[in-house]
Amino acid sequence: MRKLSHEEIGRQRLRKEEISAIERLPVVACLENVRSLYNVGSIFRTSDAALLEKLILTGFTPSPPRKEIEKTALGATKTVPWEYRRSPADAVDQLRKNGFRICCLELTDQSIPYDSVRPEHFPLCLILGNEITGVSAELITSCDFGIQIPMYGTKHSLNVAVAYGIAIFELSKIWRRHSRSTQT
Amino acid sequence: MRKLSHEEIGRQRLRKEEISAIERLPVVACLENVRSLYNVGSIFRTSDAALLEKLILTGFTPSPPRKEIEKTALGATKTVPWEYRRSPADAVDQLRKNGFRICCLELTDQSIPYDSVRPEHFPLCLILGNEITGVSAELITSCDFGIQIPMYGTKHSLNVAVAYGIAIFELSKIWRRHSRSTQT
Repeated sequence: MRKLSHEEIGRQRLRKEEISAIERLPVVACLENVRSLYNVGSIFRTSDAALLEKLILTGFTPSPPRKEIEKTALGATKTVPWEYRRSPADAVDQLRKNGFRICCLELTDQSIPYDSVRPEHFPLCLILGNEITGVSAELITSCDFGIQIPMYGTKHSLNVAVAYGIAIFELSKIWRRHSRSTQT
Repeated sequence: MRKLSHEEIGRQRLRKEEISAIERLPVVACLENVRSLYNVGSIFRTSDAALLEKLILTGFTPSPPRKEIEKTALGATKTVPWEYRRSPADAVDQLRKNGFRICCLELTDQSIPYDSVRPEHFPLCLILGNEITGVSAELITSCDFGIQIPMYGTKHSLNVAVAYGIAIFELSKIWRRHSRSTQT
């Protein structure tokens, strides 16, 4: 077994000019007041890998161009569609009108396990909250449902960029499995 | 739907004094030359959530106590068993003698998808490599197999702490599903 070279990995990836023609994962991630520039950059990088439909940065979430975002995004701010909206509630309302189900990644009294999402829940808006306070109570009440990652240890929560990675790759798996099954 | 309070979440978690009596996920993660203190701290925090058996920090991977590690570990350096070993090869050899399968999280010419790991692969040593250069060629040749996370976009790789989160929660799911099925 040997590691793939940089060139071999590159040949397996989409080229920038191919990316607009490819069907994206029907998920829009909405960041509500995510504070850390490095978390925002990391979320961009992960979103490129999952071929996310779009990132919406809201509230005081910082947006590109920022040196610190680029440090962890590694260029993904150029390949992931994104927009800034001051009001997350307005962004979510518009997505709902466009047929999206609204879901928060948050520990609530009704959240379902992150791997229980079903194909009929897509297209999906996934709301991520602030590093300390999470998703705001106001935005949670407007959600159709919440998802949560099981925590087996002593700590309360995961880092938001790590939790996003775990959730979005599970959603990607659920959606792509469904897409393949309906194409055959 | 409402957010759980800090106290409600706390009641769902293990207490520090309970943690030694609980069966852990039979995975040892071995970090080879991970450079970033923040990544190391984040990997500790995720390892607490997955109830990892142990972290082994090797080579120039920094170890606790370090202020920057604590910033992202949020106390998990006290709840996740860990040790420092200069040589990752020696650490891996010892794990192999103790019945562990050895696996790297790396893009190789033979890596299997991260969700194809089977219950018989446990107990498992999961090797994570440096942020830029990945797992060393020497350590890769000593692995029984490699796992990889599918990359659908343009970028070559994920942040190591995010990739670890995705992989370890999938391994946790595979193992816990198997454990439940053999207990019933």
